[in-house]
Amino acid sequence: MNITGLKKSIVPEEVGHEMYSLIAELYPICRSITGDGYRQTMGILQRHVPLVVHEVPTGTKVFDWVVPKEWNIRDAYVKNSKGEKVIDFQKSNLHILNYSTPVHRTFSLKDLKEHLFTLPDRPDWIPYKTSYYKENWGFCLSHNVLIHLEEGDYEVVIDSTLKDGSLSYGELYLQGESTEEILISCHACHPSLANDNLSGLSLATYLAKRIGSVPHRYSYRFVFIPGTIGAITWLAMNEEKTSKIKHGLVLSGIGDRGNVSYKKSRRDMAEIDLVACHVLQHSGAAYEISDFSPYGYDERQYCSPGFNLPVGRLSRTPYGRYPEYHTSADDLGFVRPESLGDSFDKVLAILSILENNRTYINLSPKCEPQLGKRGLYSSIGEDELAMLWVLNFSDGSHSLLDITERSGLEFNSLQGAAHVLSEHGLITERLK
Amino acid sequence: MNITGLKKSIVPEEVGHEMYSLIAELYPICRSITGDGYRQTMGILQRHVPLVVHEVPTGTKVFDWVVPKEWNIRDAYVKNSKGEKVIDFQKSNLHILNYSTPVHRTFSLKDLKEHLFTLPDRPDWIPYKTSYYKENWGFCLSHNVLIHLEEGDYEVVIDSTLKDGSLSYGELYLQGESTEEILISCHACHPSLANDNLSGLSLATYLAKRIGSVPHRYSYRFVFIPGTIGAITWLAMNEEKTSKIKHGLVLSGIGDRGNVSYKKSRRDMAEIDLVACHVLQHSGAAYEISDFSPYGYDERQYCSPGFNLPVGRLSRTPYGRYPEYHTSADDLGFVRPESLGDSFDKVLAILSILENNRTYINLSPKCEPQLGKRGLYSSIGEDELAMLWVLNFSDGSHSLLDITERSGLEFNSLQGAAHVLSEHGLITERLK
Amino acid sequence: MNITGLKKSIVPEEVGHEMYSLIAELYPICRSITGDGYRQTMGILQRHVPLVVHEVPTGTKVFDWVVPKEWNIRDAYVKNSKGEKVIDFQKSNLHILNYSTPVHRTFSLKDLKEHLFTLPDRPDWIPYKTSYYKENWGFCLSHNVLIHLEEGDYEVVIDSTLKDGSLSYGELYLQGESTEEILISCHACHPSLANDNLSGLSLATYLAKRIGSVPHRYSYRFVFIPGTIGAITWLAMNEEKTSKIKHGLVLSGIGDRGNVSYKKSRRDMAEIDLVACHVLQHSGAAYEISDFSPYGYDERQYCSPGFNLPVGRLSRTPYGRYPEYHTSADDLGFVRPESLGDSFDKVLAILSILENNRTYINLSPKCEPQLGKRGLYSSIGEDELAMLWVLNFSDGSHSLLDITERSGLEFNSLQGAAHVLSEHGLITERLK
Repeated sequence: MNITGLKKSIVPEEVGHEMYSLIAELYPICRSITGDGYRQTMGILQRHVPLVVHEVPTGTKVFDWVVPKEWNIRDAYVKNSKGEKVIDFQKSNLHILNYSTPVHRTFSLKDLKEHLFTLPDRPDWIPYKTSYYKENWGFCLSHNVLIHLEEGDYEVVIDSTLKDGSLSYGELYLQGESTEEILISCHACHPSLANDNLSGLSLATYLAKRIGSVPHRYSYRFVFIPGTIGAITWLAMNEEKTSKIKHGLVLSGIGDRGNVSYKKSRRDMAEIDLVACHVLQHSGAAYEISDFSPYGYDERQYCSPGFNLPVGRLSRTPYGRYPEYHTSADDLGFVRPESLGDSFDKVLAILSILENNRTYINLSPKCEPQLGKRGLYSSIGEDELAMLWVLNFSDGSHSLLDITERSGLEFNSLQGAAHVLSEHGLITERLK
Repeated sequence: MNITGLKKSIVPEEVGHEMYSLIAELYPICRSITGDGYRQTMGILQRHVPLVVHEVPTGTKVFDWVVPKEWNIRDAYVKNSKGEKVIDFQKSNLHILNYSTPVHRTFSLKDLKEHLFTLPDRPDWIPYKTSYYKENWGFCLSHNVLIHLEEGDYEVVIDSTLKDGSLSYGELYLQGESTEEILISCHACHPSLANDNLSGLSLATYLAKRIGSVPHRYSYRFVFIPGTIGAITWLAMNEEKTSKIKHGLVLSGIGDRGNVSYKKSRRDMAEIDLVACHVLQHSGAAYEISDFSPYGYDERQYCSPGFNLPVGRLSRTPYGRYPEYHTSADDLGFVRPESLGDSFDKVLAILSILENNRTYINLSPKCEPQLGKRGLYSSIGEDELAMLWVLNFSDGSHSLLDITERSGLEFNSLQGAAHVLSEHGLITERLK
Repeated sequence: MNITGLKKSIVPEEVGHEMYSLIAELYPICRSITGDGYRQTMGILQRHVPLVVHEVPTGTKVFDWVVPKEWNIRDAYVKNSKGEKVIDFQKSNLHILNYSTPVHRTFSLKDLKEHLFTLPDRPDWIPYKTSYYKENWGFCLSHNVLIHLEEGDYEVVIDSTLKDGSLSYGELYLQGESTEEILISCHACHPSLANDNLSGLSLATYLAKRIGSVPHRYSYRFVFIPGTIGAITWLAMNEEKTSKIKHGLVLSGIGDRGNVSYKKSRRDMAEIDLVACHVLQHSGAAYEISDFSPYGYDERQYCSPGFNLPVGRLSRTPYGRYPEYHTSADDLGFVRPESLGDSFDKVLAILSILENNRTYINLSPKCEPQLGKRGLYSSIGEDELAMLWVLNFSDGSHSLLDITERSGLEFNSLQGAAHVLSEHGLITERLK
């Protein structure tokens, strides 16, 4: 069994349910770009796949950036003058402005309000906000709670620490036949947000788990990193490895009920771009393809001009196009096992083509070889057409995907034809 | 008179009637990929054009193939128990499975039926079937006859031979000013089928006849070959000549009432492709252009990747898209003199542009030359525009056809302008 | 203040009115490709801008052409037998066939008519006709006047001279930071025709006047030349200077009420083509873009294959597409201050982008630089997006205009972002 077989053998919705369970388990943890919540998350993933957790010390220079101090938090609340907790981190870790410095002081409502963040347009939802690179503290809450806060003094407690430590990230390398790599990247720094980023985290984990169980041509490198600073740190620490990356996918926001969308790499016509577009165009479902732009998730870093890696991004509804994005409404009800399973299936479809998209050389290029004497000619059916296409275009400059696009036949047919022709010594894979 | 003059001088329908007569003469002969029917056909063509008939012995290795044994047939029939011939080769040579081995035996109806081929969907038509590379015997008949065959014994006689001999093909070379060649190829291996392949055979013959009567720039090579094995044999025996082939056309199925269709060469943008598309696009009649695909007629061999010759195919309704294809309904009523004449006219239109599609160098490239002092400037009319276009784009990288496409003017106008400018020493043909 | 500032500071309609006044002042003068009317015109322009007037002697060889004799005219009329002037040059200089040789003779109506030109379809208009290179004489008049001429003798007087002299043209060079040049060319040889060519003349003059008042990156060369022979003469006398021309515009017919139209240079994708198309596409007004063709105005010469300069043409309604073209109806009522001002504004828009369309190198190309620590990151707004686009695509092969097209952002935003990033040392301009 290979990855193509894997794709055929899985039942997307079943995998979707497994992925959903992992999301549910990870959901309550308060993650940030550093700290114990991140480590705890990696620990749970390690029960599924043997990922290695790397620690990069505070102060490490990573290109134009510096690894920040480590943040940890135990508790945080705001009590009114009656001693009632009107905001309580224990109820939702979104209540705390992520990376808030420690505080224990009493404020008037007016002064307190300068540190409170709400969404007046969505008065029931708690926003998700961070202040990683500017020391600050604050609380996020629903607007409906804010407007009912009465005048008076409020005790503010933030039991957090911000001090030298390290940035953690998880990495898993699955050795394939070739040392050429496919990079799968997801960010794992968000607290209780289900679609962004637990869906990507869960998909990457199950993908690693399944791919680890079958032989494969490419080596696969999975990175579970904090957004932005994590990608920058990984690239800075692993710059020499990037030349091995032949294809890559950033996975994020792949659990909502929207259509699958693919954002091309900066190269625009990299093989991953051609393959992902092919899969979506032939999926039978609605989809969206967008050109590269230099904002979004960690493709920003992989596709910075100094790297320009062939890394695209697979999502469902693109971030910022659903109102639940970066709010408490991106919860366990917002992601669906069916969507997770479908995303998983499409990633496998992409990988299956990448694994098999070889370029061949016709060893009998002058006129057609006589298929009949080899028992390969029955009557003209799709199989024989596929053989003729592969023979004619296997001149070393057309991959099977190129021939698929040109012929209008199925990739699987051409791959099957190539297999048969190769076994009969009529074509051979092009050496690079 | 040159080929352009030839095109102007012919009356397509008159040529169409001549072509039709030749088709009618050739129609009754039982041809196959080898044998005396083939030689007899070449003999008739030799009354029109001085083609040379080559014989390639059985067993000759031609790339991945071997020249097969020679097949000849004198008679074949099936008699019922009353001694009546229920299937009779003398009535139609399509009745015999082409390349049937000799038989003289009695069969029950049940056993006989394993060797009978019909078209249940077209119960009045006899199918055309062959078994060149797998020894077998059989009869083709209309389904209506089959279903009325009664139980009983049937005497089967096939008076054929299949033994060492040779494969024949005809070739005609018309020397032009240049040793660069235009290849015209048609297959001549089908028995009583009028459109496929007698129409192509007849068109090629009349083309050779007419072109042979005028001076021409290119040399022309006409090959009258058995399908597939003939093209492969010709390429194997003449590999060193192929580098001279600058343009080529496979002619087949050009006598039915459908629109003219052109199938591009594998190069997709070869000059023959550009010219043929230009002619069809400006013909004023409906047409069809299709991309190269590695099945069809002998363009499969010419466009195999080891040759990749600039050879397209001109047909009317593409094979397999008319129900009469490879049946007794592809008869003398299926081809029409008007269609044959129109196809002839379009081939001449293509050749006329190829002959004249030169690339020039403006000898006065800085600013416009003063046309007025040479008497070339009247008022702005198409002639002067054509001169300005030719002057401006004759930088050595635009052919007259390129300039035609860019300007929207007629090729003839630009050719005329180039002629005048050349005579006035303002442009000169680019040496290769 | 630079050219961008200039564009912002002008009120198009005000400039349009100034341009209109200059047109009105120049309108009555009888210009031709040589002679005192041309010199008088240059003299009026010199009151606005310090252009240098060059004189090239009759007989000078300029590529395939020769500078013609100089033509001057004082008076011309046709008197009927009653001594009434039925055609009078003093009423309109269009009445004289431009370059008419001197005549003083009496003709019968029949003989006279061979020298009379009218527009039967536009019976009230006087056509504009010339005979520069074939000695002749004649009068142009309205068809309504022609048909009322009675039989009888007519005295014809043409008080002109055609003798050795010189061809005059005006030239103005505005030195910029760079020695690379932008060429602005207009023809100035037409007599009382307002749109063709006084509108172009006036626009070029006001452009020179305004650009001369601000610093600019490119050097600007304005040429005020007689059509065709003037462009050829200028190119012949200044061939060595043409390598400095990086962009150019021919301005003609830019005062009518039609939409702005741009005709591409022969290079098709020269920077001037991309910029002009961008400006028109984003102008919010209807426009027309056409491919290069080798007829029209002096772009014919600049874009002849031996020069192939990146020179496009800006017009409003293309010549020959309005019936007033080359007739007395192309008068002061045919051009409008609003149109003139709008054309002026669009030329400045084009020049503003050309001036600022630099290509940068990201000095921190591996991952994104940390904008926040430099105070450049607020929240995601257009400014930050523009910075990300400039950073990501500043790899030395994308100009700001390229990034504009790809991002869909405004050129001004990207130019502003580039300015800020450059000041922070994050990007640097690419040296050529």
